[in-house]
Amino acid sequence: MSPVSSVSPVGPVGPGGPVTRVVIVGNGMVGARLAEEIRRRDPSGARVRLTVLGAEHRPAYNRVLLPSLLAGTLTEDDLGLGAPGRGVRTGVAAVSVDRAARVVVTDGGERVPYDRLVLATGARAAVPPLPGLLEGSGFARGVTPLRTLADARRLRMLTDRARRHGGRLAVLGGGVLGLEAARAVAARGVAVTVVHPAPYVMDRQLDAAGGRVLARALRRTGVALRLGGGAAGWEPGVGLRLEDGGLLPAQGLLLSTGARAETGLAEACGLATGPAGVTVDATLTTSDPAVHALGDCASLAPGLVQPGWEQAEVLADRLTGADPHARYAGTPQVTRLKAAGIELACLGDPLEEGDEGEGGDEDEGDEPEVLRLEDPTRERYTKLVLRGGRVTGAILLGVPDAAAGLVQLYDRGAPAPSDRLALMLGRALPPESGGGPAALPDHSTVCRCNSVTKGALRSAWHAGAKSTEELATATRATTGCGGCRAAVDKIAAWLAETDPVPGADPTSGGAVQDPVSDSVPVL
Amino acid sequence: MSPVSSVSPVGPVGPGGPVTRVVIVGNGMVGARLAEEIRRRDPSGARVRLTVLGAEHRPAYNRVLLPSLLAGTLTEDDLGLGAPGRGVRTGVAAVSVDRAARVVVTDGGERVPYDRLVLATGARAAVPPLPGLLEGSGFARGVTPLRTLADARRLRMLTDRARRHGGRLAVLGGGVLGLEAARAVAARGVAVTVVHPAPYVMDRQLDAAGGRVLARALRRTGVALRLGGGAAGWEPGVGLRLEDGGLLPAQGLLLSTGARAETGLAEACGLATGPAGVTVDATLTTSDPAVHALGDCASLAPGLVQPGWEQAEVLADRLTGADPHARYAGTPQVTRLKAAGIELACLGDPLEEGDEGEGGDEDEGDEPEVLRLEDPTRERYTKLVLRGGRVTGAILLGVPDAAAGLVQLYDRGAPAPSDRLALMLGRALPPESGGGPAALPDHSTVCRCNSVTKGALRSAWHAGAKSTEELATATRATTGCGGCRAAVDKIAAWLAETDPVPGADPTSGGAVQDPVSDSVPVL
Repeated sequence: MSPVSSVSPVGPVGPGGPVTRVVIVGNGMVGARLAEEIRRRDPSGARVRLTVLGAEHRPAYNRVLLPSLLAGTLTEDDLGLGAPGRGVRTGVAAVSVDRAARVVVTDGGERVPYDRLVLATGARAAVPPLPGLLEGSGFARGVTPLRTLADARRLRMLTDRARRHGGRLAVLGGGVLGLEAARAVAARGVAVTVVHPAPYVMDRQLDAAGGRVLARALRRTGVALRLGGGAAGWEPGVGLRLEDGGLLPAQGLLLSTGARAETGLAEACGLATGPAGVTVDATLTTSDPAVHALGDCASLAPGLVQPGWEQAEVLADRLTGADPHARYAGTPQVTRLKAAGIELACLGDPLEEGDEGEGGDEDEGDEPEVLRLEDPTRERYTKLVLRGGRVTGAILLGVPDAAAGLVQLYDRGAPAPSDRLALMLGRALPPESGGGPAALPDHSTVCRCNSVTKGALRSAWHAGAKSTEELATATRATTGCGGCRAAVDKIAAWLAETDPVPGADPTSGGAVQDPVSDSVPVL
Repeated sequence: MSPVSSVSPVGPVGPGGPVTRVVIVGNGMVGARLAEEIRRRDPSGARVRLTVLGAEHRPAYNRVLLPSLLAGTLTEDDLGLGAPGRGVRTGVAAVSVDRAARVVVTDGGERVPYDRLVLATGARAAVPPLPGLLEGSGFARGVTPLRTLADARRLRMLTDRARRHGGRLAVLGGGVLGLEAARAVAARGVAVTVVHPAPYVMDRQLDAAGGRVLARALRRTGVALRLGGGAAGWEPGVGLRLEDGGLLPAQGLLLSTGARAETGLAEACGLATGPAGVTVDATLTTSDPAVHALGDCASLAPGLVQPGWEQAEVLADRLTGADPHARYAGTPQVTRLKAAGIELACLGDPLEEGDEGEGGDEDEGDEPEVLRLEDPTRERYTKLVLRGGRVTGAILLGVPDAAAGLVQLYDRGAPAPSDRLALMLGRALPPESGGGPAALPDHSTVCRCNSVTKGALRSAWHAGAKSTEELATATRATTGCGGCRAAVDKIAAWLAETDPVPGADPTSGGAVQDPVSDSVPVL
C-alpha cells in the first residue's frame, strides 16, 4: 500500500464513526456507478453523505451504447442507468476545487464541502488540429464527435440528412468507436467512409493481418475504408479534404480520433497528472489523500467501461469502510467491436509476434507461444498469445464460439487446454446441442462489464427475475456494452425450461436463500 | 501441336514400319526410365533399336535417395533402378553430336548413328564463384556436392571423419537437398550447420512464416542454421569463411547451391537452349525435329523426379508409336522434405498472399483464397491457396494427415470441400481407425513419383506381389522419393488381412484379369 493512501483524512470513515461527506464530480457511467455502489454498501446513508455533481441536465446514461442508438437497435430510454439515487444533482458543473478548504465550487457559485472528493470527470473527444473542424467555441457545421447523447442526436441528424440527399458520411479515425459508428451508419443505409491514417483499422488492438481481415468484413457490411492517410481539413458543404490532396465528398463528419482524459479541474487545483490522466495508485488515491480519481479521467483506466466499474467497487469499499484495504488489481482487458455482422473480441495484449525475425542460432528463451489462423475469405482471423501456458492475448475475429470460451479462460487466468488448436477454433468447447447454458459452470462470468456470473443470474431468477429484462434490472447484466445479451437470453430460456419458479410465491422453497443470491443487488 | 514436331524423321515410326534407331544420352533416373518405358511398349525391339549411353560405369540408380544413403537408412543396393535392359552401355560418354549426319560421337571415338536422339543429360551442381572451392579440375579437399553416388560416398567419408574428430560439417545452401543432407548428417550424430543467404530456409518453396517454423524443427533435430548471409570462401582444414567476416569451423563442406541443366552437348551442336535447359515443346522435341530432350536438362523440368518420369512416358509413347500424339501436359508439383522427424510437403505455388497490402477501396477481383495456420511451438505451419475452389498451392508442415488428403485432392484437381479448415488441419479425412487403406478409392495415387494408384497395387497383389518389396518390384511404388513407403506398407498389410491370395495359384479366381492389372508392368 502506498504511504499516501494510508494518511487518515478529516472525518474518520467506519462503522459507527461520523458521517463522511463524499462529493463525486461527474455523473457519467463511472461516477453514477460509484454512487450506486456506495448506496448499496450504505443504504441508509449512515456512513456516507453523498453528493454527485453532473454537468449534463439528464440522469446518467450508458455512453458505450451510443452507436446502438445511432443504428436504431436501442432507444434513448434503453441507455438509462436507472433512476438517480440520493444526492445526485444534474445540470451542476464543478468549476474549481479549493483543496485547502476542502470545497468544490460549482458553476452556480455554490461551495460544496467534502471530506473526500472523487474525480470522475471522464474524457473528452480529442480534436486534431485541422482547419475547418471548429467554429467559434463549438464544432463546425456537419462535424461532431460521439461522446454524449447530444453528440449522438447530432450524428443521427447528419446521417438522416445524408440519407435524404443520397450523400455520404465521413468518419475520421478507424478505432473501435469510429468503426462501430460507421457500421451503424451503414446499417441505416447511408454511404460511409472511414478515413484512417494507419495502414489498417483498429491498429491499437489488431496486428496487420487481423486488420486486413476486419477490413474485408467492414467492406462487406457497407463500410468503405481509406487507409494509410489522414485528413487535411473539413470543408462544410463539400467534404473531407485528404492528406494526399484528394477530396472525400461528405455531408457530415464524425470525429473519432481518440479521447483525452478530462484533467482540467485536477490540474487547476495542483493535483499530479500524467498523459494518461490524473495520477492515482492502486487505492485510486491522487497526490492528495483526500482526493480520488477513477474511470477515464484517471491514469489506471484504459478507456473501457469494465475497469472503471471495477474501480468504482474498490473505491466504494474504501469510502464506506466495507473494505478499507480494497485495492484495484487491474482488469483483464477485453475489447469487443459492436458491429452487426462482425464478431470481434480482443483480449489482453495480442500484438506479440513470437519468433518473428529470428535469424540466428540464439536460444529462444522467454518467447511467447503464438498461434495464428488466417482465413480471410470467411472473414476469420484468430491469434492466440500464451505465456507459461496461460492466454495473455488474443484476437478473435469471426469465431464467436472460440471467443466465448477464451474470454472465460482469460478472465479466470486458468491454464489453457493442451489442444491449442481446438481452443483457438472453438472446437474445444462442447457442441452447442450438448452444452450451452447447462454446461457453463456457475462461476463463469456472463456479463463482463458488470462481473455477473451465471450463478448470480440463476439466483436472480430464483428471486423472481424471469426474463432477460428482469435479469438485467436485478443483476445489471447486459447493461454495459450489451455484448452478453444473446448469452443472457439463452440462460433465461434455459432457466425457464429447466428451473421454473412459480412467480414470487414464497412457498416455492428455499431458492431465495441460494448462497449466491446475496450478490444480487436490491434496487 | 507445334509444326516442328510434325516433321517426319528418317525411318518412320509405327507398327509394321522399319525399326527406328533411338539413342538416349544419359543413363540417369530419367534416361533409364525412358529406356524402360520404351522396352515396355516394344518388348521385342520390333519398332525401336535402343542405345543408352551412360557416362558412369555403374547401372542407373536413384539419385533422389542419396541423402538416405548418407543417413544410413538405405544401402547402395537399395538405390538400384533394376537390372540394365537391352542397349545400355555404361562408362560411355557422348562428347559431340553431328546432327547433319545424325551421329553421336563417344569419348572412345565411336560414331553411333540415330534416327531419333534423346538428350537426358540431367543437371550438375552449380558451384558459386568463391575462393577455395575448386582445386585443379575437381573440388578442393573437404568439399563436395551431392549429385552422384561418388559424391555421396565422399560426403559420407567427410561426415565420418568429422565424427571421429568431434568436428562439424558445413552445408552451403538451405534448399531441399541441403536440408535433407544436413538432417542426415545430424542423424549420424555429427554437428552440422547450414549457411543460407536468404533470411529463411527453402525460400523457393516456403514463405517467411513457414520458413521460420521449419527452422525450429530443424534446430530441434540437430541442424544449426546461419541465415541471412552467405559464404566468402572455403579454407581447407579450417572451415567456411562467411560473408560477414566470421568463420564457421568445419572439416567438410557440402555444396548444395542449386543445379544447372547440363546443356553442353546441346549447345555445341547448335540446339536452342535457355536458362532452364534445352528448349523443348510439349512433345519434348528440341529445335531439331530428330532430337528430343527431357528431365533436368530440358526446359520443362522443375528439378523433381516425377515430371521427368512422366515425360519419359510421353516420349516413349511417341517414339514407339504407342501414342504418336502424346503430349506432356505438366505435372502437379509436390515437393517433400525427406528429413527424419519433420513432415513437410509443398504443393504447387503456395507463395501467393491473398489480400496482402490491400489498402484502398479497390475491388478484390481475381484474388486467390488463402488460409494459413501458424503454430510454431508445435512446429506446425500450413498455408492453403485456392483459386476457383481448387487447391493451387499449399505448405503443409507438421500436419501429415492433412498432407495426405491434400496431395490427393491436388493431384486430381478436384474441388476442395467447403470446410477448408478441416481440410487444412487434416480433420476432413475419416480418422485412421475408421478409414485407412480401405477408405482410399482405387484411383488414388499412392506413389506420386511413379503414378501408382491404389488400384494398381491391388492388381499387383492379386498377380502375386505379396509384400511391400514385391509390390515395389511389380509397380515401382516406393522407388522414387520413397515418401510413400509407409502408405504402401499399410496397403500391403490391409491386403494381406482382407484379400489373401494363395500365392501364384491360378485356381484362385479371376483376380489376374482385374481390369486395372494391365497397368502393372511385366519386368
